[in-house]
Amino acid sequence: MSGFDLKGYLAAQRARVDAAFAEYLSARLAGAPEELVKAIRYSVEAPGKRLRPILVLAACEAVGGHFMDALDAALAIEMIHTYSLIHDDLPCMDDDDLRRGRPTSHKVFGEALAILAGDGLITEAFCLLAAPRGARVSPATVLRVVREVSSAAGVSGMVGGQVADMHNQGKHLDLVALEHMHAMKTGALIEVSARAGARLGGGSEDEVEALAGYGRALGLAFQIADDVLDVTASTEVLGKRTAKDEDRGKNTFPGLLGVEASRARARALRDEARAQVARFGALAEALGALADYVVERER
Amino acid sequence: MSGFDLKGYLAAQRARVDAAFAEYLSARLAGAPEELVKAIRYSVEAPGKRLRPILVLAACEAVGGHFMDALDAALAIEMIHTYSLIHDDLPCMDDDDLRRGRPTSHKVFGEALAILAGDGLITEAFCLLAAPRGARVSPATVLRVVREVSSAAGVSGMVGGQVADMHNQGKHLDLVALEHMHAMKTGALIEVSARAGARLGGGSEDEVEALAGYGRALGLAFQIADDVLDVTASTEVLGKRTAKDEDRGKNTFPGLLGVEASRARARALRDEARAQVARFGALAEALGALADYVVERER
Repeated sequence: MSGFDLKGYLAAQRARVDAAFAEYLSARLAGAPEELVKAIRYSVEAPGKRLRPILVLAACEAVGGHFMDALDAALAIEMIHTYSLIHDDLPCMDDDDLRRGRPTSHKVFGEALAILAGDGLITEAFCLLAAPRGARVSPATVLRVVREVSSAAGVSGMVGGQVADMHNQGKHLDLVALEHMHAMKTGALIEVSARAGARLGGGSEDEVEALAGYGRALGLAFQIADDVLDVTASTEVLGKRTAKDEDRGKNTFPGLLGVEASRARARALRDEARAQVARFGALAEALGALADYVVERER
Repeated sequence: MSGFDLKGYLAAQRARVDAAFAEYLSARLAGAPEELVKAIRYSVEAPGKRLRPILVLAACEAVGGHFMDALDAALAIEMIHTYSLIHDDLPCMDDDDLRRGRPTSHKVFGEALAILAGDGLITEAFCLLAAPRGARVSPATVLRVVREVSSAAGVSGMVGGQVADMHNQGKHLDLVALEHMHAMKTGALIEVSARAGARLGGGSEDEVEALAGYGRALGLAFQIADDVLDVTASTEVLGKRTAKDEDRGKNTFPGLLGVEASRARARALRDEARAQVARFGALAEALGALADYVVERER
């Protein structure tokens, strides 16, 4: 363990992301109906970990890029994550009333506006991805990022993973199938966060692949930690309902491996993530500390 | 009126679009869960007019491009249109049971899968837009198309228009406000179909703007004709429920102007659309005939 101040780092990056969102939301959503902007703001401005956008910025900086090169992509990916939360929380999906410590979007705005806020977020995310203000890379590279992010969010990635998760409820999955499902549902977007940051920071193919590998391991470790927290933490600490996975007959890592073996698997993935970014030395201190945090966090 | 064989033209372009969809759906959705692919296929393969993709191809050909230059963009825009229909039909939105003569997606697959099929379609549409196989234009131009299409589909375009439409129910709109709402809700995507086709076909800025103007006029004419058909046609002919606008207290052109004045406004827009593309001569015969068809169609 290094003496790296992760807490300070995360706070500083989160402040960058939040400031950029504040500017984006008032400038770029100006032509939209008021109630839609309100619903979008409600979810985007909810206090969150901002894991994905911070990962975009950290990967950009690891390859020697400036955070501005990747800031719009960071927002775009967080918007995609936010849309997925709004839709997943709907009554016909996970039917959750609480998210990030507050009532879910459909509880506040009704189902129709919640669905449309999600639709607006995913669509505007691609607009933002395709018009990065800071990026110094070629249009061809930006286009590649659009392709990779949409692919990660699409039917073989996040959306596909959500469908697989729904259809697997009540069925027994083995470890390979469970990890594959999570690689789609949450892993793909986390992996592409690191990948996009590295590309927009001007990383070489090798560097991009190393950071994508880091993101892949981190994403799975994050999901395992999430499953463990659902079993061990309280609703007050987590800001969302807990012990809900078991209620629904969902396949989870603790359900399959037990809590201790799940924690061990998460730590092994943490080590794998750390190994992927060792080559970047001091530039990747934040990424190493982030891997520790994801596994050890208590909420 | 020319002797142009619009029926044959539409059938030929529709066959191109359908063949490309068949190939796309089997090749590019291979990694997705089976039930998701089934739901996506159900809506994409439903018999439709294919107005938007045909417009993309026709605009591309009007500026001297080859249809292959714009074929993937044509599919992508039809996918965006299809996602919007699936979400608009949901119980919490327009609550429609019938679409294109068949039960709506949520009736067949349930709400959760219908929402996710829509989410998958919009996301994959951007992946396809960013990876056009045939396009001979620069990555910068492709990127511009991604921006323009996402902007047209987003919170100041289609999604914003749907929210405005919802919130305007029961309120009285004047003609300016009604036209503005439709310019967002349906006009923006029709306009950007012509714009994208022209750009991908290698059109000059002037040519792109002329075709965008054509699309703008056509889109509004199309909406007025749709409103008129809702009043005058039967459910059997239209393949969707009719007389539903009035039931819901929606603002419509016939409701505001009467049927005859609405028809006159649609014909004036048809003339405006025709004027925009007169410069392209014989290359725009299809676009001229399409403008006639949109106004005169009986379903």
